[in-house]
Amino acid sequence: MITFEDFKKVEVTVGKILSVEKIPDTDKLLKLMVDFAEEKPRQIVSGIALYYPNEQDLVGKKCMFVTNLEPRVIRGHESNGMLFAVSTETGAFSLLEPHPDIPQGTKAK
Amino acid sequence: MITFEDFKKVEVTVGKILSVEKIPDTDKLLKLMVDFAEEKPRQIVSGIALYYPNEQDLVGKKCMFVTNLEPRVIRGHESNGMLFAVSTETGAFSLLEPHPDIPQGTKAK
Repeated sequence: MITFEDFKKVEVTVGKILSVEKIPDTDKLLKLMVDFAEEKPRQIVSGIALYYPNEQDLVGKKCMFVTNLEPRVIRGHESNGMLFAVSTETGAFSLLEPHPDIPQGTKAK
Repeated sequence: MITFEDFKKVEVTVGKILSVEKIPDTDKLLKLMVDFAEEKPRQIVSGIALYYPNEQDLVGKKCMFVTNLEPRVIRGHESNGMLFAVSTETGAFSLLEPHPDIPQGTKAK
């Protein structure tokens, strides 16, 4: 069990994916540039390549990201956030996509 | 900024809404019964009635809930979780609905 204050610490934000690149010599890693209606887009590394045989399908999608984690370096690539999505042990995966009229930068609560 | 451990404390889970009732003498409050693939459904109170003029539209939807908050009593009704959704200051609102093939009980990560 957690308190409401514990919950409030975590910032989950709508981001719009602007571009996607596979990270060479990895099976799973994609490098996303994501717009959060901030001064500039953020680079975010995510391990979802196996769910997107054509990774360009992700471009233009709005989905949810954790946006106040400490930056991490993954295989030499800085990641300034983390995709927030659902997956099952049997291989099903889903982004969490809000309605299209919700602007990027909107925080979940 | 938070640590990955701070983030991991918060449990956000796919729930399927089984039934919805307006809470009398309130404008905004709905009482939801939500299936998380647990032994029995949970009662969750949510302040989203104004977004659903026909609140029965919510029945059958799968969406996201924070499921490890301490229970709260809201206007006399126990709430064992909290809807996790997005809304803007201009009145737009969206549930976060995973693809239909993601079963209730699945945790976001």
